[in-house]
Amino acid sequence: MDANEPQVVFIGAGPGAADLITVRGARRLAQARVVLHDALTDPALRELAPQAQWIAVGKRGFDYAELQSRINALLVEHAPGGRVVRLKGGDPSVFGRLEEEILALDEAGYRHEVVPGVTSALAAAAQCSRPLTRRGSGRSVSLTTAMTHLGLLQATRTADTEVFYMAGRQLGALAQRLREAGWPADTPVCVVSRAGWPDALTTSHTVATLGDAHATHAERPAVVTVGAGARPVAAAGDGVNDDPSA
Amino acid sequence: MDANEPQVVFIGAGPGAADLITVRGARRLAQARVVLHDALTDPALRELAPQAQWIAVGKRGFDYAELQSRINALLVEHAPGGRVVRLKGGDPSVFGRLEEEILALDEAGYRHEVVPGVTSALAAAAQCSRPLTRRGSGRSVSLTTAMTHLGLLQATRTADTEVFYMAGRQLGALAQRLREAGWPADTPVCVVSRAGWPDALTTSHTVATLGDAHATHAERPAVVTVGAGARPVAAAGDGVNDDPSA
Repeated sequence: MDANEPQVVFIGAGPGAADLITVRGARRLAQARVVLHDALTDPALRELAPQAQWIAVGKRGFDYAELQSRINALLVEHAPGGRVVRLKGGDPSVFGRLEEEILALDEAGYRHEVVPGVTSALAAAAQCSRPLTRRGSGRSVSLTTAMTHLGLLQATRTADTEVFYMAGRQLGALAQRLREAGWPADTPVCVVSRAGWPDALTTSHTVATLGDAHATHAERPAVVTVGAGARPVAAAGDGVNDDPSA
Repeated sequence: MDANEPQVVFIGAGPGAADLITVRGARRLAQARVVLHDALTDPALRELAPQAQWIAVGKRGFDYAELQSRINALLVEHAPGGRVVRLKGGDPSVFGRLEEEILALDEAGYRHEVVPGVTSALAAAAQCSRPLTRRGSGRSVSLTTAMTHLGLLQATRTADTEVFYMAGRQLGALAQRLREAGWPADTPVCVVSRAGWPDALTTSHTVATLGDAHATHAERPAVVTVGAGARPVAAAGDGVNDDPSA
C-alpha cells in the first residue's frame, strides 16, 4: 500500500439509485476490498464492487450508541488491510454521523478520505423540477432533520426554503410544528419519496394540507421541502402558484 | 425520439473535478448532441462527450438579464433536435438559476429532466473532513449566498452550520457581517477553495481571523463554512478544538 493512500474511504452513495453515485465514488468502490454499508443502500450498488466483501452495518436490534460503536469497531478492525469503503446514503457530511467514524479512525491511527455524494434534498428538488433557490426569494436553503437525537419533532422557519430529512412518518405532526414556527398555512410544501428511482413519487401541498401526504408516501423514505423552493415553476399569474395543492 | 424523452437534460457537474459528476450525469453527457455549459466547468468533462457540440454560455460582457435571456434562447433554439445537455456547476437546484431556464422550456413546450449534482458545500466538507452536521450541535445546515442579487453582502446566524457560497473576494467584509449577525468572534470558520481538485486548499480560522484567508485563496472560488461544521474533528479536550486557527 502507498504510504499516503487512505485505508478507509467514506463514500456518499447518493439518494439510493445506484447511478446517482459520483464517478469517483464508483471508481473507489471498484477497488474496494471490504465495503461496510448501511441498510438503505441500493442493492444494485453491489455490482460496482463484486470483488469486495460486503458487510451490512445498519442492522436493527441495536440502539444508537451500540450500533455506532459496532461500526467504529468494524472500521478499525478492517482498516489495517486497506481498501475499505464505508458506503453511506446521501452525502457523508450531512446527517451521516461521519464525525464519530472519523474520530475512531484518527484515534487508531488510520488515514481516510471522504468522497461527497448527492444529498437527498438535491435529489428531491431534481425529481420534482423545483429549484431550492429562486431569484428574489431564495437566498438561503436550510437542510434540517425534523427529529432531534432525543426523538422529538421540531421545526423552524429560518430560511427561504427548508428541507426536512427523516420526517416521513410524522407528516401531520410536522405540519403542526411548521405552523407553530410561523409558516403561513398556504406556504407551498412538496413531498418526494424515493427521489431518483423509477418509482419516485411527488405530491404538492400547503403547510395546512401536509398531513394528507401520508396516504401517498406511507412508509417510503420521504423528503419534505417547505417555502420558496417547494413552489412549482410557473410564470407569475398563470394560476399554478395560486393553488399549490393542485 | 421517444415521445416521452426529455429534449433537454439539466446536469449538475459537481464542484469542478470531472470525476465528481454522477454516473447518471456522465451517461447522459455521453449521449448528448449539444452541451450548453458554464465558464467554470472542468475542461476534462469534455472527454465525457467528445461527440457533442460544446457551447460556452457563461461568457463575460453581458449583464445578468442579457446573459440569462441569451441562455434561454439557446436552450429553446437547440431543444427541438433533442439530446441537449445544460451542464451547470455544482447542483442545478442550488444557486443555479434553474427556475428561469425551466420556465423558458415549459413556455416553448419542451420537456426536460434534472440530474442532481454535488453542491460545493458538500465537496468542501469532504475535502477538509469536517462533517456539516455534528451530534448534539448540528441539527441544521444552511446553504446561503453572501451576495444578494443587488450585489450587497449579507450574513445571518440561523443554523448550527452555515455555508456561504460566492464569498471569496470579500472575506474581510464577510467576517464583519458575521460578527454583526451575532456569531461570536471565536466561532470556527473553514475556507476551502477548489474542493475536490488535486490543488484544493483548506484554511482554518475563527470569525475574528477570517479576513486572513484572502492571502491563501485570493482569486480562487472558495466556500466558507461557519459554526459547528467548521470545527476540526477531534476528541473533546485534546486541544484541537481550543484553537481552530491553528
